[in-house]
Amino acid sequence: MKVAWAGSRHAVEVGDRMARLVASDPVFRKDNRTMISRKDLFKDTLRKAAHAWKRISELRLTEEEASLLRQYVDQPGYVDLHWGMFVPAIKGQGTEEQQKKWLPLAYRFQIIGCYAQTELGHGSNVQGLETTATFDPKTDEFVIHSPTLTSSKWWPGGLGKASTHAVVYARLITEGKDYGIHGFIVQLRSLEDHSPLPGITLGDIGGKFGSGAYNSMDNGVLRFDHVRIPRDQMLMRLSQVTREGKYVHSDVPKQLLYGTMVFVRQTIVADASKALSRAVCIAVRYSAIRKQFGSQDGGPETQVLNYRTQQSRLFPLLASAYAFRFVGDWLKWLYTDVTQKLEAKDYSTLQEAHACTAGLKAVTTSATADAIEECRKLCGGHGYLNSSGLPELFAVYVPACTYEGDNVVLLLQVARILMKAVSQLTSGKQPVGTMAYMGKVQYLMQCKCAVNTAEDWLNPVAIQEAFEARALRMVVNCAQNIGQAAKQEEGFYERSPDLLEAAVAHIQLIIVTKFIEKVQQDSPGHGVKEQLQNLCNVYALYILHKHLGDFLATGCITPKQGALANELLGKLYAQVRPNAVALVDAFNYTDHYLGSVLGRYDGNVYPALYEEAWKDPLNETVVPEGYHEYLRPLLKQQLKLSRL
Amino acid sequence: MKVAWAGSRHAVEVGDRMARLVASDPVFRKDNRTMISRKDLFKDTLRKAAHAWKRISELRLTEEEASLLRQYVDQPGYVDLHWGMFVPAIKGQGTEEQQKKWLPLAYRFQIIGCYAQTELGHGSNVQGLETTATFDPKTDEFVIHSPTLTSSKWWPGGLGKASTHAVVYARLITEGKDYGIHGFIVQLRSLEDHSPLPGITLGDIGGKFGSGAYNSMDNGVLRFDHVRIPRDQMLMRLSQVTREGKYVHSDVPKQLLYGTMVFVRQTIVADASKALSRAVCIAVRYSAIRKQFGSQDGGPETQVLNYRTQQSRLFPLLASAYAFRFVGDWLKWLYTDVTQKLEAKDYSTLQEAHACTAGLKAVTTSATADAIEECRKLCGGHGYLNSSGLPELFAVYVPACTYEGDNVVLLLQVARILMKAVSQLTSGKQPVGTMAYMGKVQYLMQCKCAVNTAEDWLNPVAIQEAFEARALRMVVNCAQNIGQAAKQEEGFYERSPDLLEAAVAHIQLIIVTKFIEKVQQDSPGHGVKEQLQNLCNVYALYILHKHLGDFLATGCITPKQGALANELLGKLYAQVRPNAVALVDAFNYTDHYLGSVLGRYDGNVYPALYEEAWKDPLNETVVPEGYHEYLRPLLKQQLKLSRL
Repeated sequence: MKVAWAGSRHAVEVGDRMARLVASDPVFRKDNRTMISRKDLFKDTLRKAAHAWKRISELRLTEEEASLLRQYVDQPGYVDLHWGMFVPAIKGQGTEEQQKKWLPLAYRFQIIGCYAQTELGHGSNVQGLETTATFDPKTDEFVIHSPTLTSSKWWPGGLGKASTHAVVYARLITEGKDYGIHGFIVQLRSLEDHSPLPGITLGDIGGKFGSGAYNSMDNGVLRFDHVRIPRDQMLMRLSQVTREGKYVHSDVPKQLLYGTMVFVRQTIVADASKALSRAVCIAVRYSAIRKQFGSQDGGPETQVLNYRTQQSRLFPLLASAYAFRFVGDWLKWLYTDVTQKLEAKDYSTLQEAHACTAGLKAVTTSATADAIEECRKLCGGHGYLNSSGLPELFAVYVPACTYEGDNVVLLLQVARILMKAVSQLTSGKQPVGTMAYMGKVQYLMQCKCAVNTAEDWLNPVAIQEAFEARALRMVVNCAQNIGQAAKQEEGFYERSPDLLEAAVAHIQLIIVTKFIEKVQQDSPGHGVKEQLQNLCNVYALYILHKHLGDFLATGCITPKQGALANELLGKLYAQVRPNAVALVDAFNYTDHYLGSVLGRYDGNVYPALYEEAWKDPLNETVVPEGYHEYLRPLLKQQLKLSRL
Repeated sequence: MKVAWAGSRHAVEVGDRMARLVASDPVFRKDNRTMISRKDLFKDTLRKAAHAWKRISELRLTEEEASLLRQYVDQPGYVDLHWGMFVPAIKGQGTEEQQKKWLPLAYRFQIIGCYAQTELGHGSNVQGLETTATFDPKTDEFVIHSPTLTSSKWWPGGLGKASTHAVVYARLITEGKDYGIHGFIVQLRSLEDHSPLPGITLGDIGGKFGSGAYNSMDNGVLRFDHVRIPRDQMLMRLSQVTREGKYVHSDVPKQLLYGTMVFVRQTIVADASKALSRAVCIAVRYSAIRKQFGSQDGGPETQVLNYRTQQSRLFPLLASAYAFRFVGDWLKWLYTDVTQKLEAKDYSTLQEAHACTAGLKAVTTSATADAIEECRKLCGGHGYLNSSGLPELFAVYVPACTYEGDNVVLLLQVARILMKAVSQLTSGKQPVGTMAYMGKVQYLMQCKCAVNTAEDWLNPVAIQEAFEARALRMVVNCAQNIGQAAKQEEGFYERSPDLLEAAVAHIQLIIVTKFIEKVQQDSPGHGVKEQLQNLCNVYALYILHKHLGDFLATGCITPKQGALANELLGKLYAQVRPNAVALVDAFNYTDHYLGSVLGRYDGNVYPALYEEAWKDPLNETVVPEGYHEYLRPLLKQQLKLSRL
């Protein structure tokens, strides 16, 4: 199962090696992370980044190894933005010349870069950004300026304290005309002493959700007061400003940018399965250790994992971790496919690929955030302790629902593309890829589910068809309702909550489909295929039960068939139970990476919890600071209380 | 609307006065709470508690005023347990003599008490606690002992550092026999120098979820090594151990204890509406300030609150805040009613009252925890900043889902009582109170919803009946399925996930019913009744839409009727929109209590966010600590990277 999870024997081996390299290095220790001050935490992040870089260089690690090592260090920091946003932005939007100049500096860390897009007043609506880059033909420079308070750059990671450079997004103004948002390479700090350059105000935007968590990152604020940069620091792959100030488009197609977006969102889906699997691993292991309540006859207490209520909350999340993993793997393939097509100037699948990645980003991150918190609750009171690892995992994960496209905004984009696809069905244009099922509209609008017994739901064809019919009928319902509105746009607005639900249905169909396809492939290893089959069924039937209203309202299944699905779900939980611990061990996480006393591989939970408690700074003294000032006087006074 | 929310003009006045008293006192400042160390935070809590006590005494505040003042101080601390658990435990379980001895000491804070029940290995299952209290007739003492590591007391608030005394729950053993769990008053620390008494190990259990939040509380660990206490420190109202070591019951009925449970859970429901209303207040106000995306014609951007997707997520939470408030008010009445009946030795409604309060505790706390996080997401990226107040509100609130009965355990108790009620229907025993509707079983099992138009759903009778039918049919379904099992207990186990859903349906019916009843009362004030009517409909139809699967699967409504309900919901959102800000202003919260830059009453959000950022400790220096050690060497090196 380890191989099925990791994707290959090679992936297991290299992942294992990097994880152990990190776990065994005292510099990468993170068990005190929630106890130290923001300043110490930030300094610790700088230290880890420098040390990671040193190890990567010393050991001459490959790019794959280096990226895994950084993942297992597991502490957000400026390096993530440098490699994950700054370098790709220059690669994607810089000319060959610009790449030749800037990339070697970035590769050698002679400069540290970040990605300064969002502003205090604008996040989702990129076109509304207010920072200006006005071309001055007299000096051949752009003047970067923050005209309002709300135009302050706000949130970029690595900006507050670490970065020397940024790709800054600003409205390009030349010859008196506003050409909209473009990217510019701007130096922010002196390379000699790290002080902000003249005209530049820089700072950190303050503490964030949780202890530890994202507080290791210096999300920053940045204001420009007429800062001048050379013209050639505008990223000019797609469009240029000439020496004279003329704005011209290059012949590079704009669509190429979508490739980057697909890439970034694919990594977010992969990260969702990582975060979710960590939480599930902790909750499953602890539920196998924790006992509560006896059998009626006074025997030993029952493992919490044996309770059907625990299983019905936890096993669907276990199945979701696998589901997101496999759909993430498939997205990697999709990225390659899209890239190849783009290079061949074939844009036919671009919109479908965009809908699919945007929607998968939204659905998997929302589900993962909720699931981490559910795992925390499934650990009872102890899940609330920092030593359980779950509070930090939640706090560090939730921004994924908002960054790289707010999930609601993304789902509405998916819905728009779905509406367009429906409207084109009558004109005979066949939908492609993950939307191909919409071509079967006539069948799917009237098909009846053939399930008669609970076991009939084991048939993937029955599941697939029910999910296809549900998604399509919801999409068509929306389209019809919008069609009745006086204005298309008003109809879209009024029906937007329904559109969100239809988009979710479409995306859940994709996840189920890709899971079914994965199960149908060869999976080496004893019993692996059967386990995956079980998890696939758990995932699909759990979604069906959770969204039963959708399936019944659209007449895709009958109440009786819904009850049968639920009955089967109970039986599947019983089958997953004996393998549950093995299924999370397959993630192959070190105790260091999990960072949880409750999720320890050796199960030695209670002594570890007890020991961990004494490390809290409050326990440095037996009698607490403040006793003499605030407790003793209270205890010693003899208040005459007439009214209390 | 302020009066409708607070309950009376008097409540508005006194609440307002106490809130302003706290807000204007610099000692009660809390805006730096997420930035300070655990030790400083704890010391700050001691300081605030002492200062609050001083103000309460100086101003000779009434008990009502004192309790409100503590609420507005809004920082968990040992005082909460002293007043909320220690004193009530002695009142409820102590004899008159014991009360006369201990209560005056507690009232004057000559001792500080906490409530030491849960252990490292046992929370929900109180009967499984391991601490022992063995009677030694030779010395007329109990010997309190922790026989195992897992028997360490774990979690009690105020225990770690502040308390001098505790009510300790332990297995009473006398004459070689284990009589189960009983309460004992145990002194933990010296009243002279606060050091733990011999045989007692005390400490804090470590950091918890979030910054600030519950880390102000010294949740503690406590171990006993054969600690001796006088026999008369066993709480003896319900049972005693005689000088000779005989265990005897008193003639006080055990049922009296349920009264306390109803009381505590009623305050938890009231707290749910407080926490939820704070989050909703922040999200509604900020959504009215925040603009994003333009109209199609390039006009000014749209207030986020005008988006239907925002409304469809936020307004149901606004309605829930009101719903929980009113059901909480009703629970206060129920507590009085139960108490009176208990005093008259009438136990006929006790089980129903228990089911109702346990279930309401579970449903309102779970919904509130989810809703606070949803409100945070509804504030976009800025909701992730501590200065938004939402991260701390979430982190400090979520334990409510676990303490005083884990929500799942409580719902299963409700389900058991529902199953019992169903089984008694045939024997002609009429269910009472909130279960009375089950008496209409024959009608409700076959009734058909009469809704034909969207507006038909405005009829409270239609709503009430649909909710009654849904709950009853789910309950009866469960009973029938369990009935088919070979063993009753196995059937209950297998069907426990369904039982949870049935219990939730029953409790949601209660909330809807009490909201409808509230609306039907006289509500003074212009337009107040209409507003409440709208909110009531939003709440009911939102629940109906969210649980559409239940309503359709049980045939209570048709898909068409479900679609009509959804259509009406859209119209109701449009009606709530112009009053949304007024509806949260009615909560009458000070900016101090809200503790949110985004929820400021004056709407001056962006300058405040900007200003707040600079207070972060990371901004104390422009060049961060660690630059010289970890950044400069990196930037200055000239690495030859052959492989990266």
